[in-house]
Amino acid sequence: MQAARQLAPEGMTIAPIEVGELPFYSADVEAEGDPASVAAFKASVLEADGVLIATPEYNDGIPAVLTNAIDWGSRFPGRSPLAGKPVALMGASPSQVGTARAQLHLRQLLGHVHARTLPPPELLLAKAHEKFDSALRLTDEGARHVLTALLERFARWMARERAIAEGEQALATPGPHRRRST
Amino acid sequence: MQAARQLAPEGMTIAPIEVGELPFYSADVEAEGDPASVAAFKASVLEADGVLIATPEYNDGIPAVLTNAIDWGSRFPGRSPLAGKPVALMGASPSQVGTARAQLHLRQLLGHVHARTLPPPELLLAKAHEKFDSALRLTDEGARHVLTALLERFARWMARERAIAEGEQALATPGPHRRRST
Repeated sequence: MQAARQLAPEGMTIAPIEVGELPFYSADVEAEGDPASVAAFKASVLEADGVLIATPEYNDGIPAVLTNAIDWGSRFPGRSPLAGKPVALMGASPSQVGTARAQLHLRQLLGHVHARTLPPPELLLAKAHEKFDSALRLTDEGARHVLTALLERFARWMARERAIAEGEQALATPGPHRRRST
Repeated sequence: MQAARQLAPEGMTIAPIEVGELPFYSADVEAEGDPASVAAFKASVLEADGVLIATPEYNDGIPAVLTNAIDWGSRFPGRSPLAGKPVALMGASPSQVGTARAQLHLRQLLGHVHARTLPPPELLLAKAHEKFDSALRLTDEGARHVLTALLERFARWMARERAIAEGEQALATPGPHRRRST
């Protein structure tokens, strides 16, 4: 994520969204009203033009802390902050697959919640322990190239999705000069 | 899970293992030593002859609280309480698939941690809201039949896995009367 901030194209600002303090999703907790941490998380997602997710891989999947954020972010259906939100994926692991299995599952979850996930290629940073220097700067040239390209594609993807959303909104709002066909 | 307790074959006792109070898995937390809730969780899994998991389905996957329990239970490699542990799966959801997608992912995670997961058929309780009475007793005859059969298969599966584990242990421990071939 630090490397992404360094390589972000002009005009893109990457800020963290905190998810580590969310309680486990529970319909009982939700029924009492969103806790403050959940409300803040949802507001951050709503405000962002897009969400860039960086994940490790645990036991072939994504960490519980990320699953949990997606579960809260999917609520409620019809006013979920993740629905329609542009999302891009990247991940790093010490293994040779570089979070490929985790990201596949993540893409499945995001599909279910109607996020607009940037199509592959993702950033699958394999053997991650060999690709950063002691100051945790990404030194691998190939990975820097893939990440730069991903962020540029993501910027275009967010612009495209924003234009589509505005077009849909305009279609749904009859203006004074537009005739609507049924 | 209540229905499973009622339908359990003779000799099988089903007791809850608490996972809702575990912190999110984090290598930083782990490095300071397992918190008390994690130590208690691992001890419960180690002591059990097997683990019966009942899951809902959230966004095509399993809840974060369950992912998190598996992540803690997978640690450390080489002395993980889930490694070699017999596990059986069931789930209930209001949809027509009855947690099929969640259980597929769950089976993938459990495979990675070397659990001995009972082969299909799982219990996939679809339209779960129609299958319990007001006292939350499982009234659907077909589901009761599948669950009863699953629990009987699980009892045999645990006995089989125990015998295999004891055989492996005996092979690894040379006795006074056994000649070892190399």
